[in-house]
Amino acid sequence: MQTQLAPRRRGRPPKSTGGYSETRDALVRAGVVALTEKGFSATGIEEILQGLNVPKGSFYHYFGSKEAYGSELIGSYAAYFAKRLNMVLLDESRTPLDRLREFVSVADAGMARFGYTRGCLVGNLGQEMNALPESFRAQLVNVFSDWQRLTADCLRRAIATGQIAPTLDCDQLAAFFWIGWEGAVLRAKLERNGEPLRTFAAGFFLLLQR
Amino acid sequence: MQTQLAPRRRGRPPKSTGGYSETRDALVRAGVVALTEKGFSATGIEEILQGLNVPKGSFYHYFGSKEAYGSELIGSYAAYFAKRLNMVLLDESRTPLDRLREFVSVADAGMARFGYTRGCLVGNLGQEMNALPESFRAQLVNVFSDWQRLTADCLRRAIATGQIAPTLDCDQLAAFFWIGWEGAVLRAKLERNGEPLRTFAAGFFLLLQR
Repeated sequence: MQTQLAPRRRGRPPKSTGGYSETRDALVRAGVVALTEKGFSATGIEEILQGLNVPKGSFYHYFGSKEAYGSELIGSYAAYFAKRLNMVLLDESRTPLDRLREFVSVADAGMARFGYTRGCLVGNLGQEMNALPESFRAQLVNVFSDWQRLTADCLRRAIATGQIAPTLDCDQLAAFFWIGWEGAVLRAKLERNGEPLRTFAAGFFLLLQR
Repeated sequence: MQTQLAPRRRGRPPKSTGGYSETRDALVRAGVVALTEKGFSATGIEEILQGLNVPKGSFYHYFGSKEAYGSELIGSYAAYFAKRLNMVLLDESRTPLDRLREFVSVADAGMARFGYTRGCLVGNLGQEMNALPESFRAQLVNVFSDWQRLTADCLRRAIATGQIAPTLDCDQLAAFFWIGWEGAVLRAKLERNGEPLRTFAAGFFLLLQR
């Protein structure tokens, strides 16, 4: 874990499950990092707590269970990612297709920054869903739907501005993009380089030129 | 675990690490199933041994370690899968593109048979590679290279028979296919249906029609 907290305080942690707490926030951030790197099954709560020097009691005080923690990590990552995605896909200074290209390039740079060790939390958990609490399934499916909707909207703008043919099915193409993109992130992580991201993106953009 | 063995025999297991043994074979088959369903991190050796009623000593007798076992499971799955892939992609009774379509349809039917609970062992382990023994990485990368080579050969045959344009880059397209296909298998498992496989395949075949 990279995040380091202030030295552990003695006594019960402050009662602030719903609100902001430095410890709670650090637990969420460290959890998100662990899940983008290794997924849920390979991540031990103990290891996260040790990395942050947080006692076990605090963890259960804030989250109640590993399942509730996992669910919050999915939500936190999804919110963060949707915000980043929107920032790129709604950027009026670029054409709609250039926004998609920018997304690919930002994602590649983001993975490169951590030596391609961190992938997509939603892809990681989606892959290991059979070993996870069943409640995660709908949550993960909804995250993909959300990203696909934002992407389809961008493609519709590309039609509106004449960048791509009006006959293209934006919803299908957005679904295609996210299905394949998660495969590309998986391979980039496995091969520790961004080539799979670029290979997939190149094929996707060719598909838009029909 | 679905595989059931004959009742456990007493005493040391027969010395046959290199050769065939019913117990060893059952351990490999059960391990492959577990890894296609849940991946490596979420699979406990204990759980596999209990399901087969095999003592722990036998496991270490045959494989030495969980790492060696995992490596053998990757090799076993890869060999099985390459054989199946070759059977479809070298089937002279079909056109080259129809062989690829047949692969997609056979894979979909294969996943449907288990309610889309079993995915691709290589994709699962690729996804969780950061939590696995480093020795698996090259092995997994090589498996993808192998599948891509077989697929590129099939695409070259499609060029030779005039089914697709001779300007297409078969190696890039085969890489594109396997990058995206693993994403499709991930989503099919997450959503428990074959729609993502069909969505990805439809886009891929459009790409070939350029």
